Amino acid sequence: MGGDQLASWRETPARQSIVEFVASVTDPDSADFVAETERIAVFDNDGTLWTEQPMYAQLAFALDRAAELGHPASLRELHDGGMPALVALVELTHAGLTTGEFDIACRRWLASARHPRSGRRYPAMVYQPMLELLGLLERSGFSCWIFSGGGTDFMRAFASEVYGLPPHRVIGSVGGTEFRADPDGAELVKSAAIQVINDGPQKPGSIHTHIGQRPILAAGNTDGDLPMLQYAAASPHRSLQLVVRHTDGEREYAYDRDPILGSGTEQLLAAAAEHKWTVIDMAADWSAVHPPAP
Amino acid sequence: MGGDQLASWRETPARQSIVEFVASVTDPDSADFVAETERIAVFDNDGTLWTEQPMYAQLAFALDRAAELGHPASLRELHDGGMPALVALVELTHAGLTTGEFDIACRRWLASARHPRSGRRYPAMVYQPMLELLGLLERSGFSCWIFSGGGTDFMRAFASEVYGLPPHRVIGSVGGTEFRADPDGAELVKSAAIQVINDGPQKPGSIHTHIGQRPILAAGNTDGDLPMLQYAAASPHRSLQLVVRHTDGEREYAYDRDPILGSGTEQLLAAAAEHKWTVIDMAADWSAVHPPAP
Repeated sequence: MGGDQLASWRETPARQSIVEFVASVTDPDSADFVAETERIAVFDNDGTLWTEQPMYAQLAFALDRAAELGHPASLRELHDGGMPALVALVELTHAGLTTGEFDIACRRWLASARHPRSGRRYPAMVYQPMLELLGLLERSGFSCWIFSGGGTDFMRAFASEVYGLPPHRVIGSVGGTEFRADPDGAELVKSAAIQVINDGPQKPGSIHTHIGQRPILAAGNTDGDLPMLQYAAASPHRSLQLVVRHTDGEREYAYDRDPILGSGTEQLLAAAAEHKWTVIDMAADWSAVHPPAP
Repeated sequence: MGGDQLASWRETPARQSIVEFVASVTDPDSADFVAETERIAVFDNDGTLWTEQPMYAQLAFALDRAAELGHPASLRELHDGGMPALVALVELTHAGLTTGEFDIACRRWLASARHPRSGRRYPAMVYQPMLELLGLLERSGFSCWIFSGGGTDFMRAFASEVYGLPPHRVIGSVGGTEFRADPDGAELVKSAAIQVINDGPQKPGSIHTHIGQRPILAAGNTDGDLPMLQYAAASPHRSLQLVVRHTDGEREYAYDRDPILGSGTEQLLAAAAEHKWTVIDMAADWSAVHPPAP
């Protein structure tokens, strides 16, 4: 079903494992059949659905916004300052606005900022093969969700247009909000507090809180995604685990550690080898990485 | 549209305000038309969708479970012990199980426990008129969500069957979980930590995190629901706020303070009067309170 629509996937075992899995869980005559209400798929975002190099888009947004606010900072200063510097940057650039104002700031940035190497807008840095996979899954009765370490509010500023997902299916790290009601209205004002860092073991925790069902498909690219893939792999149904490997230094980037937090891939790749999960080798498996330029 | 299906609502202004609101936001020719993707409705649970007297069903569950575990406690002891006693009870009865085991424990209790006054199962203590309202809204293109102070995991054990809502649209207070993966599987074990108490200003915060859209309909019954109703009332769209008043000492209960936390209704009723929100007088507006006995 629909495998012919994975146009940017080469005819390799990775593609085959996806097509075969989708066919089996959607075939009412298959022993692996899964009812539509239980066809839940979860995806990491940065490095799994779009490019995260040379830095997370959200970090580029924060640095641009800090400069706009009169507090320019370089990536090197941020590296040297470690976690406290990162927290200070988030406070400066993500707090003190209403959620509506923050959404506007994100959308304005996304409409103007350009990725430093490709020169394209950040939404164009999405992986075309993963867009095709999301489309195949939705057409096959799946509900696709994002569980990312990135901020929920930042992601929702582009996820509907780029991925076609409603905001409630786009979940990331969560900052605090303060509710303010007065005769003029009722708003949530973003605070500097960080309520949830949505990485590692928090990902299955967030999946339980936000979905309340165990996924049958999970996709990620670093050790921070391993618990999410383990959680899906322990489904009573047949499940599929996808590991995106950044092997393509020419069309994308070749690396095995994420750019800021330094989360590696050793444990994820070891688990993939042990459990025969599907490893997607970007250089080998994808005939195109990003959507064609307009 | 569909107003004739609110069979347990008497022909009063409360019913009329609901029917007229739904008709106007679903009529493409109306200035108040709202697209389906933005027809979000949020409901408190205890005291708004089902009976919360003489005590929350979840508290009855906890007391029964504590007794089963060899630590019986009375409601009076709990009142006298205040919040620390309540927290200890939650720890004893809600922690140390996997989320799957807890779900089974809740379902077993729901299938056997009986409401002390009516003698009926707790799921039969739902308000029939509110079931009809949920049905009318879903048929009219709304997405209905629950945002309750009760525990998410407890509510999800009955919300699908009773309200017809998928688990991701049933949100309450959230306990901590610990992720455990080993060769036998991957489970979330419930811990004693309380991550989110979903009441008061946290309700709009949770709505933002879980939906990412502002509702156009909100329903509640205590001051803890006021921020949620204010948040909906500040929608740029036409919106409807519903306040359920417990005025029926014969068919249900007559009270203005909730049973355990003591949250009152003064602020909510004052806001309702000021903004002309729809106050539902259970004695006057409902021809039936609960579903007919089988």
